[in-house]
Amino acid sequence: MSRWQPDARGRLEQAALELFGERGFEAVTVAEIAERAGLTERTFFRHYADKREVLFGGGKALEELLTGSVAAAPADAAPLEVVGAALAAAGAALEERRELARRRSRIIAANPELQERELIKLASWADSLRSALLARGVADPTARLAAEVGIACFRVAFERWIAPKNRRPLAELIGASLGEVASLTT
Amino acid sequence: MSRWQPDARGRLEQAALELFGERGFEAVTVAEIAERAGLTERTFFRHYADKREVLFGGGKALEELLTGSVAAAPADAAPLEVVGAALAAAGAALEERRELARRRSRIIAANPELQERELIKLASWADSLRSALLARGVADPTARLAAEVGIACFRVAFERWIAPKNRRPLAELIGASLGEVASLTT
Repeated sequence: MSRWQPDARGRLEQAALELFGERGFEAVTVAEIAERAGLTERTFFRHYADKREVLFGGGKALEELLTGSVAAAPADAAPLEVVGAALAAAGAALEERRELARRRSRIIAANPELQERELIKLASWADSLRSALLARGVADPTARLAAEVGIACFRVAFERWIAPKNRRPLAELIGASLGEVASLTT
Repeated sequence: MSRWQPDARGRLEQAALELFGERGFEAVTVAEIAERAGLTERTFFRHYADKREVLFGGGKALEELLTGSVAAAPADAAPLEVVGAALAAAGAALEERRELARRRSRIIAANPELQERELIKLASWADSLRSALLARGVADPTARLAAEVGIACFRVAFERWIAPKNRRPLAELIGASLGEVASLTT
């Protein structure tokens, strides 16, 4: 054992991603995840409601980071600028997790049910961004459109970020996607 | 009975939307749909694999219309122009179904499983648009971004189209959303 140990939650996540990658999400049990992490099932359930939450448990915190960023943006910022800054903040928070994100994406790509869950998560982010824009006084359809376009850019940027040879940070790729939307329309 | 009768498929759809609206999607059986339409269950199953397909069976034809439009667009059209024209063609095809679309949307909004299915359908449309753009020689990430932004505009336009007081055609609202994306980014 190395001197440094990640926290229990992090060890469980590592173990789960390894096992899901080796044998597929469906085939892995919570008992096996706990064992691989050198922890008990009881500890697992202190951190995660079920094995799916290992893959999606971080989504809520990011969603709150997004809405908090939107609320805190300068009053005179344009809607898509506000959304872009919020997504860039989320991107920065994810940056050190690139290798985990790559493994997570491969696991999700192999399982239709997890793909659905991922779509639902992103739709929920879009709804939250829209609500946060409405709370700033941005009206619909502008609020909804800025939120949906922002999430579309996030998805595209995320895919580029986890591509095998990419070295560019996620926040930068999000900015590049938003910039490219501008050029798409001209 | 009036002299004019919609085809069996149309009558089954009408009956299903009525019943889903009255009692919720889950509670309605195929036998009840067939009875309301004045047809047999056997006829139902000649047109639809199950009751969910009544709500989603048209999606594939629209998806083919989208990809066909992209393939047929002028060679020099910009990616988002190509996507916009394809979505406007789909919008025109849907125009006479506004009242059915309103009812369908209320049914879907009341049922999380149907909402997931709707998200999957739209993600599939985005994938098909992207593939059709790639086939035209548009590279990623531009192809993916144009497809995702297009679908985002479609969703926003669709919601406006089925709003109670709206009288504007869907194709026009799609164009307005795409135009608004341009103004969001400036």
